[in-house]
Amino acid sequence: MKLTEIAKIIGANFDGVDFEIDSMNTLKDAQGNELSFVASSKYVKDIASSNAGAMIVDVKTLEEVPEGCVALVVQNPYWEMAELSKYFAPPIENNTLPSPIIGSNTTISDKAEIANGAIIGENCTVMAHVYIGTDAVVGNNTVLHPSVTVYRDCKIGNDCMIHAGTVIGSDGFGFATNKLGEHKKIYQNGNVIVEDDVEIGSNCTFDRAVFGSTLIKKGVRIDNLVHIGHNCEIGEYSVLVGQSGFAGSTTMGRNTVFGAQSGAAGHLEIAPFNTFAARTGVTKSIKESGLTFAGFPVMGHRSWLKLQGKLARLIK
Amino acid sequence: MKLTEIAKIIGANFDGVDFEIDSMNTLKDAQGNELSFVASSKYVKDIASSNAGAMIVDVKTLEEVPEGCVALVVQNPYWEMAELSKYFAPPIENNTLPSPIIGSNTTISDKAEIANGAIIGENCTVMAHVYIGTDAVVGNNTVLHPSVTVYRDCKIGNDCMIHAGTVIGSDGFGFATNKLGEHKKIYQNGNVIVEDDVEIGSNCTFDRAVFGSTLIKKGVRIDNLVHIGHNCEIGEYSVLVGQSGFAGSTTMGRNTVFGAQSGAAGHLEIAPFNTFAARTGVTKSIKESGLTFAGFPVMGHRSWLKLQGKLARLIK
Amino acid sequence: MKLTEIAKIIGANFDGVDFEIDSMNTLKDAQGNELSFVASSKYVKDIASSNAGAMIVDVKTLEEVPEGCVALVVQNPYWEMAELSKYFAPPIENNTLPSPIIGSNTTISDKAEIANGAIIGENCTVMAHVYIGTDAVVGNNTVLHPSVTVYRDCKIGNDCMIHAGTVIGSDGFGFATNKLGEHKKIYQNGNVIVEDDVEIGSNCTFDRAVFGSTLIKKGVRIDNLVHIGHNCEIGEYSVLVGQSGFAGSTTMGRNTVFGAQSGAAGHLEIAPFNTFAARTGVTKSIKESGLTFAGFPVMGHRSWLKLQGKLARLIK
Repeated sequence: MKLTEIAKIIGANFDGVDFEIDSMNTLKDAQGNELSFVASSKYVKDIASSNAGAMIVDVKTLEEVPEGCVALVVQNPYWEMAELSKYFAPPIENNTLPSPIIGSNTTISDKAEIANGAIIGENCTVMAHVYIGTDAVVGNNTVLHPSVTVYRDCKIGNDCMIHAGTVIGSDGFGFATNKLGEHKKIYQNGNVIVEDDVEIGSNCTFDRAVFGSTLIKKGVRIDNLVHIGHNCEIGEYSVLVGQSGFAGSTTMGRNTVFGAQSGAAGHLEIAPFNTFAARTGVTKSIKESGLTFAGFPVMGHRSWLKLQGKLARLIK
Repeated sequence: MKLTEIAKIIGANFDGVDFEIDSMNTLKDAQGNELSFVASSKYVKDIASSNAGAMIVDVKTLEEVPEGCVALVVQNPYWEMAELSKYFAPPIENNTLPSPIIGSNTTISDKAEIANGAIIGENCTVMAHVYIGTDAVVGNNTVLHPSVTVYRDCKIGNDCMIHAGTVIGSDGFGFATNKLGEHKKIYQNGNVIVEDDVEIGSNCTFDRAVFGSTLIKKGVRIDNLVHIGHNCEIGEYSVLVGQSGFAGSTTMGRNTVFGAQSGAAGHLEIAPFNTFAARTGVTKSIKESGLTFAGFPVMGHRSWLKLQGKLARLIK
Repeated sequence: MKLTEIAKIIGANFDGVDFEIDSMNTLKDAQGNELSFVASSKYVKDIASSNAGAMIVDVKTLEEVPEGCVALVVQNPYWEMAELSKYFAPPIENNTLPSPIIGSNTTISDKAEIANGAIIGENCTVMAHVYIGTDAVVGNNTVLHPSVTVYRDCKIGNDCMIHAGTVIGSDGFGFATNKLGEHKKIYQNGNVIVEDDVEIGSNCTFDRAVFGSTLIKKGVRIDNLVHIGHNCEIGEYSVLVGQSGFAGSTTMGRNTVFGAQSGAAGHLEIAPFNTFAARTGVTKSIKESGLTFAGFPVMGHRSWLKLQGKLARLIK
């Protein structure tokens, strides 16, 4: 999409040399052919080092924009980014793509739907009522139980098993809100990558990234009804027990264990080899490793036990 | 159904002038051609002003029944109401109805199932393994991702997006229990209405009303794995984050925000423009607006922070 | 499978008289044609009385193995059990079995998939996108709403209703972990049995047993998004409200009520006729009956109310 068109859509002035914008991206990851934006003052620190070809800013942040990067000035950059995200969203399905490629010895139910452009490896089992979207990729020896949905562009590795009803790649929960309290959808143009040897229970929901990927790394084990927000990264061999949930952009190191009905807030970093007891609500990044935590807000497990003892005495 | 038949089914005496009963309804909403019931002493106050044509009561509440309304006296009105609800339930599917009506430029997967009597607007995308029930209505420009189920009689507005695996209109959790502890289903003969510009995440469950409608108003944004009980009303532009859940008949005003894994008990009224932090459990109606709450049972967010501070000191 | 083959797979010495092993089972339930294992020191007490034909043990527990039972000695019995479980897993589908048997007056959507070997009773309604696996059995007068999945070998009783998207019989969350933190799946070769007159809401997940059955007894009522772990037993007429979850091998007596977003840890025994308020987290077995509980960790409901009063005073 031409920069002049973009400027027109969002009502920004632009009279420089026009060029093609291929996609939108964060300040950190955007390249010269990409458009970025400053969603809030929290991101102003990332402006100077950004390689974005153009940037949506408000008038207050205009002077931070580095030389060589086109600034598009609007009142509400986040709202305009939401508006533009729609234009960069690929079609939900694309029937002009070639028929799906299916590896040898793979069984696909005639009641499954595989969109054009999808690639499925060898020795897979794709059961009834499964949907695999455009340009999605499934590795070898992977089993997709009934009614699994893999949205377009998502990747599932080798030797995975996904149980019935699980959804991989639905849109992350992203929208801008204006002063009237109205919301505008931010199209989620990233994907989900599930690496090799991952087992996922039934009726889980893993959201696709807004940009980039939501990442489930090798050997992870996930129980039923688990929710993973957009742009999360789940470390190798981590274990997420039933009904746990993870807000957007939280990353955890390898062999992290989250107990039943636990959860983590967004944008946290959790060091590897920690265990979080059932119902733990992680509200801050965890830098230590090899520990056990509990409670909401999160605390060390021993502290939590001590607290329960104190509370028990309180009512005696 | 004739009143004499109804009396016979529930073992009540009736020797007045017979007439046709079209449906069952609450004391407040029932009209002259409808049958109501007094489920518990909590509802006795609604008897006098009810316009119901007939009413199932026990002998203790018989004298409260207004003149002109037929009283059917039984031992356990709630149990008999449950028994009767079955007779007023429409068939799950009705193939005598005309073929579904599909608007122009709407794409329907050949692996979707649209029941007779359904109406779908223009420019919609209905993906594989979607089910749209008898007499359901979908507006224009709406996208239903794979394996979405819309039960019979439910209505989805314009410009909506519903993500994979979400269920709109399953039966509300209603049953009567006798002294032996056995349960009898109360057929849920209402529906769900989703207004315009609503986005709903994956694997959510919205229950149909027992009478009337469960209502999701304009511009609402709902994340994944959210449960909405029968007869709830979600105000315009409200935001319900992942794994939150709402018991029956709770209403919330516009721009209410419920954080992750939060919830509300049933039969509450929540004023508009309030925010409930993650894990909040709302146990009472909220009359103030513009505030932030937290905790279970619910309290002001500042109180909750103060409490956490006190508790932290308790274990030092 | 011959015992010599089994010994070879797990690298154990065996030079006795070879015989056929039909399946794997727990120490308590294994018979002479079955293989058992000692997963941890917790189970050493069950060795002496086991009727298993053979047993996987480590060198420390070797001397406990009763006469007449073959001991297969390995370093990590649980890991080797996981490795072997794969060999005893039946194929996901088995098309050599006869076509499904469907009772009279049963309606099956042409968009449902019924695997070979399945049996469905009379007067059932099987809606679009339902999957019923190999050797599964459904009784009479049962309704399966759209996109319900019943995995192979599971049994659903008479007069049941299962709402859309619910999954019966996905694999229990079982795996062994080695010293490197890598996991190996334990194939779940048991099933789920749902008895008569059970209603189950939408998008629930009930896991199949590792051995034996996960059991939902007569007259149970289950709301939406409820998770039941492998080998649980839910007593007659129990009520499980929305988003509650139950870890593996927990049993509860009849007319147990679990409120919304509540849960129980694994391997607990809960006496009948108890009620657990919303959000209760049951962390220990409950031996009394007829009481109401709340809180996490669980306590009597009155204690919980008293505690909330104390906490409220703490911040005044």
